[in-house]
Amino acid sequence: MMIFPVQNSFEPFALAPRELPTPVLVLDGAIVRRNINRLASYAAKHRLGVRPHTKTHKSKVIAQMQLNAGAIGLTAAKVGEVEEMSKVGDDLLLAFPTVDPARCSRVAELARTKALRVAVDSATAVNSLAQAAAAAGSIIGVLVDVDVGMGRTGVATASDALALAELVTRSRGVRLDGILCYPGHIWSVADQQSVQLSAVDNKLQATVQLWAAHGLEARIVSGGSTPTAFQSHLVRSYTEIRPGTYVFNDMNTVRGGFCSLEDCAARIVCTVVSDAVPHQVVLDGGTKTFTSDICIPARETGHGHIVEYPDARITRLSEEHGQVDVSACARRPKVGERVTVVPNHICPCLNLQDAVWWMEAGDVQRVRVDARGQLS
Amino acid sequence: MMIFPVQNSFEPFALAPRELPTPVLVLDGAIVRRNINRLASYAAKHRLGVRPHTKTHKSKVIAQMQLNAGAIGLTAAKVGEVEEMSKVGDDLLLAFPTVDPARCSRVAELARTKALRVAVDSATAVNSLAQAAAAAGSIIGVLVDVDVGMGRTGVATASDALALAELVTRSRGVRLDGILCYPGHIWSVADQQSVQLSAVDNKLQATVQLWAAHGLEARIVSGGSTPTAFQSHLVRSYTEIRPGTYVFNDMNTVRGGFCSLEDCAARIVCTVVSDAVPHQVVLDGGTKTFTSDICIPARETGHGHIVEYPDARITRLSEEHGQVDVSACARRPKVGERVTVVPNHICPCLNLQDAVWWMEAGDVQRVRVDARGQLS
Repeated sequence: MMIFPVQNSFEPFALAPRELPTPVLVLDGAIVRRNINRLASYAAKHRLGVRPHTKTHKSKVIAQMQLNAGAIGLTAAKVGEVEEMSKVGDDLLLAFPTVDPARCSRVAELARTKALRVAVDSATAVNSLAQAAAAAGSIIGVLVDVDVGMGRTGVATASDALALAELVTRSRGVRLDGILCYPGHIWSVADQQSVQLSAVDNKLQATVQLWAAHGLEARIVSGGSTPTAFQSHLVRSYTEIRPGTYVFNDMNTVRGGFCSLEDCAARIVCTVVSDAVPHQVVLDGGTKTFTSDICIPARETGHGHIVEYPDARITRLSEEHGQVDVSACARRPKVGERVTVVPNHICPCLNLQDAVWWMEAGDVQRVRVDARGQLS
Repeated sequence: MMIFPVQNSFEPFALAPRELPTPVLVLDGAIVRRNINRLASYAAKHRLGVRPHTKTHKSKVIAQMQLNAGAIGLTAAKVGEVEEMSKVGDDLLLAFPTVDPARCSRVAELARTKALRVAVDSATAVNSLAQAAAAAGSIIGVLVDVDVGMGRTGVATASDALALAELVTRSRGVRLDGILCYPGHIWSVADQQSVQLSAVDNKLQATVQLWAAHGLEARIVSGGSTPTAFQSHLVRSYTEIRPGTYVFNDMNTVRGGFCSLEDCAARIVCTVVSDAVPHQVVLDGGTKTFTSDICIPARETGHGHIVEYPDARITRLSEEHGQVDVSACARRPKVGERVTVVPNHICPCLNLQDAVWWMEAGDVQRVRVDARGQLS
């Protein structure tokens, strides 16, 4: 896997006011809007629907911005997130296998007033959803989850997908709407990514054609991820894409070569709290701020990137401490100084916060992470 | 490092009622009480004070149980946590370098009504605390943080500790109370642990003696960790210990050989949501439930232990998915089935929840994670 170097032209987060206690997650509003608009333009050009995965921001305000920019609907991973997002969106996708009666009842209830679809990869899921929908008197749209190489969820073959689709058409309360895939295994770029996306398309085309041969239509073919977002047109079967991270970006997308540091809208401002150990400083952020997620395309780069000290390396995290190796830094941060960190993986970092701060045009606003802490 | 095998005599969590949505973090009340009492008895026998680190549970109710069992006070890592814990405890320790004016003012304010101590390892911290205390008209107790081998925070030598202690005695608003260390690098057992704890004691003794030679008293010597908790008497200088994880335990403490699976009070009940990929099932818990923390004494064991399927291995986590390799299981979990997971590291898992469920004597109660989501 190719690791992309980090350009050091990035402007540190000058805005974070001294009053905000650290560690604090701040969003650059202008960058968020630019990221949203860039994807919207790309998708419009290629006539692809955008159904952003809201797991990244879990925020109704930001979901509304995505809808305002033309998103056709919203995606979520938990029923509680879908319920929260239903307050701003009318067209919702739960991209998670929903098999237990408790989840299915809540989905069925929500489907009474909203266009709601669920991804499934088992007969158990179809039957549970159908039963719940029948009880609630609603209709739940179903996308059959097809594994395109990640090996996480999704049926293996076009004929497995057909069997599940036929079960859906035979069941009351559920409506067959199409196919879903998640190419989360693709972290390559350029030619290699094109080859991988072709393989995804072949699998999807085979499924669509087999369905068609049996009189079933895949009206929706939903795919996409942040690393593949701007090459989604190579998967000709897609009708819509569901990237999540693109709204903020992080060191995974930077180091993977999918964006630049200037496209990272979310940063965590920390205070240096210790320099007692030689060649090291300690930040007031650890796993309860950054999570333990490594940088997928560059494991050895540590736990995030310090904007003001690009030669420093966050080598080790405890729960509230971040140990930073500063031996390669010509100039070293002092105790009490604030530094700006772009985390490896923004989604679980934001999930640790009840609220984050939105900085735009000199203003600071608190943005609630509405959908965090949902139970299922 | 020795890896301890997991005994399979553990009783699955039969209590978790079907109504609780998964993934759900449940506590076995009887085990929590037994863990608290076991440490209390050990400490009483050795005349050691117990000042539990509340970062593990972040709960006032559980802190109160620890105090009821004889704990001399409470430890926390963030100012917000100390503030929350001050509602049940009167003797508080902030075991974190507090260097910025905002944190120091809040500490100084709290010190007006509570016995409050802070660990420091820099002159900046001493000066900031002294200034804030002078402004608030309070006195903040200071423990000088000495590095005993972890290399995270703490001054390196006895004479560094003396220099800082002398600065404290020269400063208004702060009071020199003693020494703090955290032997978080010690994950060994038996003889090797004894050797390591002797080295810790030597370093602490040298510091205490140097202070005494300069007329300074280390009235408190605070140390301890969960892996070393029941060998703390080997560090003769300790006056108190601050283990946190012992209250619940997790796969780190089990696999490290520090407790048995029967001592794990916190477990996460998940639903199997997919079995579409051969030799794999998927749980509805990923990094937003289990975190990405590996098992420190046994990295290769995966992301937690499934009680009902001890031969299964949680190989890969996405945010809301846990992929489980079931190829070694004679019997395999079915879609829709619930399973019980003991996580690798309980502290950050609990930190993801607004509330957890306390199961005891057939009763289920909601316990708020009071001190999560604190800003600094």
